[in-house]
Amino acid sequence: MSDMNGAQSLIRTLVDAGVEVCFANPGTSEMHFVAALDSVPEMRGVLALFEGVVTGAADGYARIADKPAATLLHLGPGLGNGLANLHNARRAHTPIVNVVGDHATYHKQYDAPLESDIEAVAGSLEGWVRRSEHTKDVGADAAAAVAAAQDAPGRVATLILPADASWGEGGETCAPIPPRVPQAVDATTVKDVAAVFGTGEPVALLVGGSACREEGLRAASRIGAATGAKVFVETFPARLERGAGLPSIERLGYLAEQVAYQLDGIKHVVVAGTKAPVSFFAYPGKASDLVPEGAQVHTLASVGQDVTRALNEVAELVAADTEPVLAPASRPALPSGPLTPQNWVEVIGALLPDNAIIADEANTSGLMLPMATAGAPRHDVLTLTGGAIGYGMPVATGAAVAAPDRPVLNLQSDGSALYTISALWTQARENLNVTTVLLNNRAYAILRLELQRVGAASGGPKANDLLDLSRPDMDFVKIAEGMGVPASRATTAEELAEQLQRAFAEPGPHLIDAAVPPLL
Amino acid sequence: MSDMNGAQSLIRTLVDAGVEVCFANPGTSEMHFVAALDSVPEMRGVLALFEGVVTGAADGYARIADKPAATLLHLGPGLGNGLANLHNARRAHTPIVNVVGDHATYHKQYDAPLESDIEAVAGSLEGWVRRSEHTKDVGADAAAAVAAAQDAPGRVATLILPADASWGEGGETCAPIPPRVPQAVDATTVKDVAAVFGTGEPVALLVGGSACREEGLRAASRIGAATGAKVFVETFPARLERGAGLPSIERLGYLAEQVAYQLDGIKHVVVAGTKAPVSFFAYPGKASDLVPEGAQVHTLASVGQDVTRALNEVAELVAADTEPVLAPASRPALPSGPLTPQNWVEVIGALLPDNAIIADEANTSGLMLPMATAGAPRHDVLTLTGGAIGYGMPVATGAAVAAPDRPVLNLQSDGSALYTISALWTQARENLNVTTVLLNNRAYAILRLELQRVGAASGGPKANDLLDLSRPDMDFVKIAEGMGVPASRATTAEELAEQLQRAFAEPGPHLIDAAVPPLL
Repeated sequence: MSDMNGAQSLIRTLVDAGVEVCFANPGTSEMHFVAALDSVPEMRGVLALFEGVVTGAADGYARIADKPAATLLHLGPGLGNGLANLHNARRAHTPIVNVVGDHATYHKQYDAPLESDIEAVAGSLEGWVRRSEHTKDVGADAAAAVAAAQDAPGRVATLILPADASWGEGGETCAPIPPRVPQAVDATTVKDVAAVFGTGEPVALLVGGSACREEGLRAASRIGAATGAKVFVETFPARLERGAGLPSIERLGYLAEQVAYQLDGIKHVVVAGTKAPVSFFAYPGKASDLVPEGAQVHTLASVGQDVTRALNEVAELVAADTEPVLAPASRPALPSGPLTPQNWVEVIGALLPDNAIIADEANTSGLMLPMATAGAPRHDVLTLTGGAIGYGMPVATGAAVAAPDRPVLNLQSDGSALYTISALWTQARENLNVTTVLLNNRAYAILRLELQRVGAASGGPKANDLLDLSRPDMDFVKIAEGMGVPASRATTAEELAEQLQRAFAEPGPHLIDAAVPPLL
Repeated sequence: MSDMNGAQSLIRTLVDAGVEVCFANPGTSEMHFVAALDSVPEMRGVLALFEGVVTGAADGYARIADKPAATLLHLGPGLGNGLANLHNARRAHTPIVNVVGDHATYHKQYDAPLESDIEAVAGSLEGWVRRSEHTKDVGADAAAAVAAAQDAPGRVATLILPADASWGEGGETCAPIPPRVPQAVDATTVKDVAAVFGTGEPVALLVGGSACREEGLRAASRIGAATGAKVFVETFPARLERGAGLPSIERLGYLAEQVAYQLDGIKHVVVAGTKAPVSFFAYPGKASDLVPEGAQVHTLASVGQDVTRALNEVAELVAADTEPVLAPASRPALPSGPLTPQNWVEVIGALLPDNAIIADEANTSGLMLPMATAGAPRHDVLTLTGGAIGYGMPVATGAAVAAPDRPVLNLQSDGSALYTISALWTQARENLNVTTVLLNNRAYAILRLELQRVGAASGGPKANDLLDLSRPDMDFVKIAEGMGVPASRATTAEELAEQLQRAFAEPGPHLIDAAVPPLL
């Protein structure tokens, strides 16, 4: 028998497999895991005060680190609190090793207050779920979880850890298990899809997943440049590399009306690493399927296949001598005057530092952002892949843990901020270089728009009141300072610029409460 | 065909069945529900900025109003965010009509970003779940949901509402369906259990559920007084009526060690409206079943039976001429000096207003509270029934909506506060009479205790760091003010007393950040 307990074998196995960070919100059933952190110095524990911060941070970490973090959650309710950001991670195909502590195996029969059906909730994530019943299996289960999380295209792997499996002696580590790599697209598919670009009919190429990184985007850009195909990035990429020197490829719009405009006249939609476009929500009398009527959909690479390689192969066939179209370095001039939905993005575009990471939950306030930052220095954009709001602050937190040397900019709408606001405390605790620009328009502005779009008329006074965040106004400067993050308020473009420069220059987190009026 | 849409028929049916408040955090798929609020003036919509506030408020509302509120949640992720406080509500047997909006029926096939398995997550609550597929059925499904929520002993009834069922025309209201009333305990059981009290052997009577209200407690007190049985209230009652003029019955302890002391020498445990005591968590080498070895368990009334009536019947048999033992009016003197774990509860006991509601999430800081308030004016105590922390602020919010004329006192530990802190904003928005005493000991103090109790030694530096909330310190005065709630900081008993009196005297919410050092 080893001299490790289950928790120690778990953490040691995780570290051996490259999992070096655990975002944690532990409880009593996780105390042996917490204690075991001291026996494995390579594992960093990062405390959050709410599980939605834990899971969102694990999502942001892996999107930047290209390898999973672990979480530590407290039974079913802890998993529930973390579920929304795990949903986003699921849609992002982010690898996460989600460790959920549970009652000791023999304790479950007593139906103690915290007992609940963890498997049912974890199962809703359609990832990988295993309960590690015996101490001696914990290491092997952990290695399997890391592999499952990383099996292409990536998923949430949930390991349920009973307290007695954790505290029991006789833990055994397990060597890393190589994850399943992305499956290559067969040559026939490559050839067939390449032929679509030669039909002379209008083609749209929609790229997603790992093709939103430089190599895939360059191949897609070459295909578009050589064939005249319109090239789009999926609406909500997990991680999009962009900026000066990279292909600047338009994202497919959030609103069905935008997509109809973007795909107008298209006869062939080639999808690569993503699915054919569908409406985010259903609207009365409007189509859910956004492929133009009569257009054919061709799948070059489905999610989980090696999309970048397939794009390169198509590019070799149809664009052998064509270079990608790269965005020139170009920044907007610094604007002046009171903040508007137009000028705040110009401030961002003018001042975005080199190699920044943008965690974008600006929602309606950010509609003009892509144009303003297209020629800014190279940066990554992380987006809200699953539509579960409250993702921006945690994802920014995790991204900053993954890349301590890169500036992280969280563009955060007010309506979404309060879900996971305590991420600020973790940013302060870990002294993370996250600058939050809080777009304080005092409304669920997107819902005002949606109220009309679903045909629910203009809304009566009670309906509009439910979309109004101005009663009372929230003071995010005070909220941030209360959590240990230096903060300031900007009402003009000049103030935003000055405060942003200061925030980027100083180490540690900052928040700017930006009085940007609603777009609508 | 009626001139109502599905959402209108839903809200009208809810109101007809007595459901008059809807705590809401809506999204696009719920916009027709939001719009329909204006067509049914009797329904009050209360906005929260996070679903955990919505569900906790619905729990607190029903515990005080004795009838359900509705929630309005946004698809699977919204339900996930609300799950922890629904778990607490499930354990409290609180009736809640949990309305979860979903994509339109025909939209689900497209697996849009917010698509997820709502039934799996809702099913984990072991309540009632129905999907209302057709507009014409929405009213009947709503009536069934209200009845299911109220069927004894009460539960979370989840109605999944596809957007097209909500917006479709042809909605039909449905008359209220009488819920199932508590089943009477049969006469033989009453007689048999009454005989247990006459054996001469030591008996403990453990009452729970609805027997924690005045009538049940009086009967239990009479039984104890006449027979010498020790009487206890379950560890975490949903609603406990207590104070001067009511029986003062000790609660069973949270720690197994306390329970062992309380039940020492007991040969018979009579359970009434609750289950036999079990340990909250498992601990290495300690029993999970807290019934003393060799003692017999007798069930007078199981959860869902008419426990109060059964207790009255036993009392008539064994205590016909015995009066209950009532707590005399008695308050501690106002203490002075720096705040301590001992003196802050004396301030509460000295100043608790008439007819108050205490939402108690003081955790370790509140260990001494029951003694200090036993002789205070009559009040209700709401407790953390399911162990999912982050319940106090939302439950206080809902209780204040249910009883606008009663002072609500939320005793809130810092470690639990950040889960659902935006409840403060809803309290400000609705001008609710909630006074929050934030017990700011800068630690997960209970976990420091648990780290030792589970045998995880004293914990190394990394372990202890994960239980430390002092890096950075949180300033709850700023956080509360940032959300529109007037706040102040108390470091002495005198300051706490002065600020508490002011908070009770002024309408609307207040927060006092009380620097109470950890008990341990």
